Amino acid sequence: MTEHTYAVIMAGGEGTRLWPVSRRERPKQLLPLLGKETLFQSTVSRLEALFPPERILVVTVAEQARVMREQAPAIPKENYLIEPAPRGTAAVVGLAAAVLRRRDPQAVMAIQTADHHIRNRDLFQYLIRTAFEVAEKNYLVTLGITPTFPSTGYGYIQQGEPLDGDYRYPVYKVRRFKEKPGEATAQQLLRSGDHSWNSGMFVWRADMILAEIEKQMPELYHAVDEIASAWDTSTRDEAMLSRWINLKSQSIDFGVMEKAERVAVLPAGGLGWSDVGSWDSLFEVLLPDMNGNVSVNSQHLPLDTHNTLVYGVDNQRLIVTIGMDDVVVVDAGDVLLVCKTDQSQKVKNVVEHLKKHNQEKYL
Amino acid sequence: MTEHTYAVIMAGGEGTRLWPVSRRERPKQLLPLLGKETLFQSTVSRLEALFPPERILVVTVAEQARVMREQAPAIPKENYLIEPAPRGTAAVVGLAAAVLRRRDPQAVMAIQTADHHIRNRDLFQYLIRTAFEVAEKNYLVTLGITPTFPSTGYGYIQQGEPLDGDYRYPVYKVRRFKEKPGEATAQQLLRSGDHSWNSGMFVWRADMILAEIEKQMPELYHAVDEIASAWDTSTRDEAMLSRWINLKSQSIDFGVMEKAERVAVLPAGGLGWSDVGSWDSLFEVLLPDMNGNVSVNSQHLPLDTHNTLVYGVDNQRLIVTIGMDDVVVVDAGDVLLVCKTDQSQKVKNVVEHLKKHNQEKYL
Repeated sequence: MTEHTYAVIMAGGEGTRLWPVSRRERPKQLLPLLGKETLFQSTVSRLEALFPPERILVVTVAEQARVMREQAPAIPKENYLIEPAPRGTAAVVGLAAAVLRRRDPQAVMAIQTADHHIRNRDLFQYLIRTAFEVAEKNYLVTLGITPTFPSTGYGYIQQGEPLDGDYRYPVYKVRRFKEKPGEATAQQLLRSGDHSWNSGMFVWRADMILAEIEKQMPELYHAVDEIASAWDTSTRDEAMLSRWINLKSQSIDFGVMEKAERVAVLPAGGLGWSDVGSWDSLFEVLLPDMNGNVSVNSQHLPLDTHNTLVYGVDNQRLIVTIGMDDVVVVDAGDVLLVCKTDQSQKVKNVVEHLKKHNQEKYL
Repeated sequence: MTEHTYAVIMAGGEGTRLWPVSRRERPKQLLPLLGKETLFQSTVSRLEALFPPERILVVTVAEQARVMREQAPAIPKENYLIEPAPRGTAAVVGLAAAVLRRRDPQAVMAIQTADHHIRNRDLFQYLIRTAFEVAEKNYLVTLGITPTFPSTGYGYIQQGEPLDGDYRYPVYKVRRFKEKPGEATAQQLLRSGDHSWNSGMFVWRADMILAEIEKQMPELYHAVDEIASAWDTSTRDEAMLSRWINLKSQSIDFGVMEKAERVAVLPAGGLGWSDVGSWDSLFEVLLPDMNGNVSVNSQHLPLDTHNTLVYGVDNQRLIVTIGMDDVVVVDAGDVLLVCKTDQSQKVKNVVEHLKKHNQEKYL
């Protein structure tokens, strides 16, 4: 790592997928879902082993920035880039790259998400170092995750030829990005052996991703370039408001990566990665007892109960389960959720239902 | 019915089988489990259609009597017979019969339980009237319940020959009482067509049941006879304390009925009876929606959920279930219970576990 290497944490997510624990006012990344640290704090401390806090940037919305600065006080205030409104990951990447390029024309940046979990930090650092080496050779580097089951919840990356060069971890050219597949396709992709999940983590030179954005999304490029040139002046807010608000929301995958050239992938296995995007994926990264049960923030008394997650907010309450298998129980203040684990994706349907029926107080 | 017909409500039960809603401090019969009325109030109002309140007696413990008098103010104070300590249903029946015989030597009495549910009140009254007619002919009459499934939770009564006489409902001599059977036997008894569940409801002349008690449990007979003779004097408490406390606890079924002669049974079908002795039996008497779900005192939002009972104490809380079938969710203050319906008998194991592990605060 050098004085030109930076990390950018994308932290604007609303995250109602872990509802009813994550709420509008308390999004997922700001909660201590897996222990004492919040997911945001874990992300920061994972990165602080590689980057001094002055070279860690956070892109988020104003409401969340206040809490984040309390949770990670070492990151300087000027490293928080505030989105007036969410405009997708392409805009976030473009803004961070443009601001960084102004500060340091040789900047190389790792894009990280604030709300994912990574158990194996040593391997993570090893992979990030390798990714920076590849990025220095003018590649847009993606971190792929070796799939462990036929997930329909992630996009996939197909690898091609191994990349030339003496890297400490296998690196491949990317053949194709694939959107979230159906079940049958997901089975095929898992068995193919040459597909990784798209983790949303990237490493690239700021000038290189900006060149790609300029080519594929010129409107976005001109907006973020103008905002960046106003960044350290009195007209920043004005530029932000006039240019940002009018951007179309787009993801970096669909907007840029799918048609980019010189894209490489590091297919990471054993990272213990999870996007913690639903109760079942949170359950997977927790360590169960001999019956497969996990209890978080709660007193759980299980009878004939297996593979059941009991997640509480009040550990004075006694939660008794009898004859339950493969269930998630979330006891969260004004809402109680009891859900078959493999159906926990349907929490989003509940959230939609509540919106539609004017029960916003539960969101 | 005549001026000599009485009802005696046995109401001393502790009832931790509907834990965590029923607690030591709030036993089952004092709770509005099925609507606005408590089970005790329902029992009283069901009987008030047949008996004036002056001829309804309640046998209970001191702690419960206070609440009962608030819940059923029409029953005179002197009709509460207080047990200093529970000594089983044989002692309760003996005491009530002895006290009644002193007040009215021609007394005929219906023994009722405070914590059962009966949906069809018209049929109930019809059966009780018939039972009194049979009791006048010097029979000990039991109300049997025509079984609807092979229950292992109830005792059974086998009927013999039809009773001679012009009754408005079929009445049979009792051939045998049977203790709670195992599963295989319960199947046989259900199919036999001549077995009823033992409901614990009886009708008999006070002098006749006392004669039977004198024959089979002479010690109990002399105790309750002595207590009854002291009842309206200043020595009542003394007699109660000296004689009652030393009684052995025994049920009327085992202590008297199994060996009694001249026992008759009315096998009642369609009464909508339940002893509400466990969550699954409570569930059975509630009226479900099209998916088989029932919600009591709670806001329930079911997704892909069937045959599930959600029982709350706080109807402001939102309870979401996803992908659940045949489950009981009981959300009761400091305890949450999630239980497969057909395993709800195991609640008593939980209660035992809590006693053993010094968690009495949850009982």
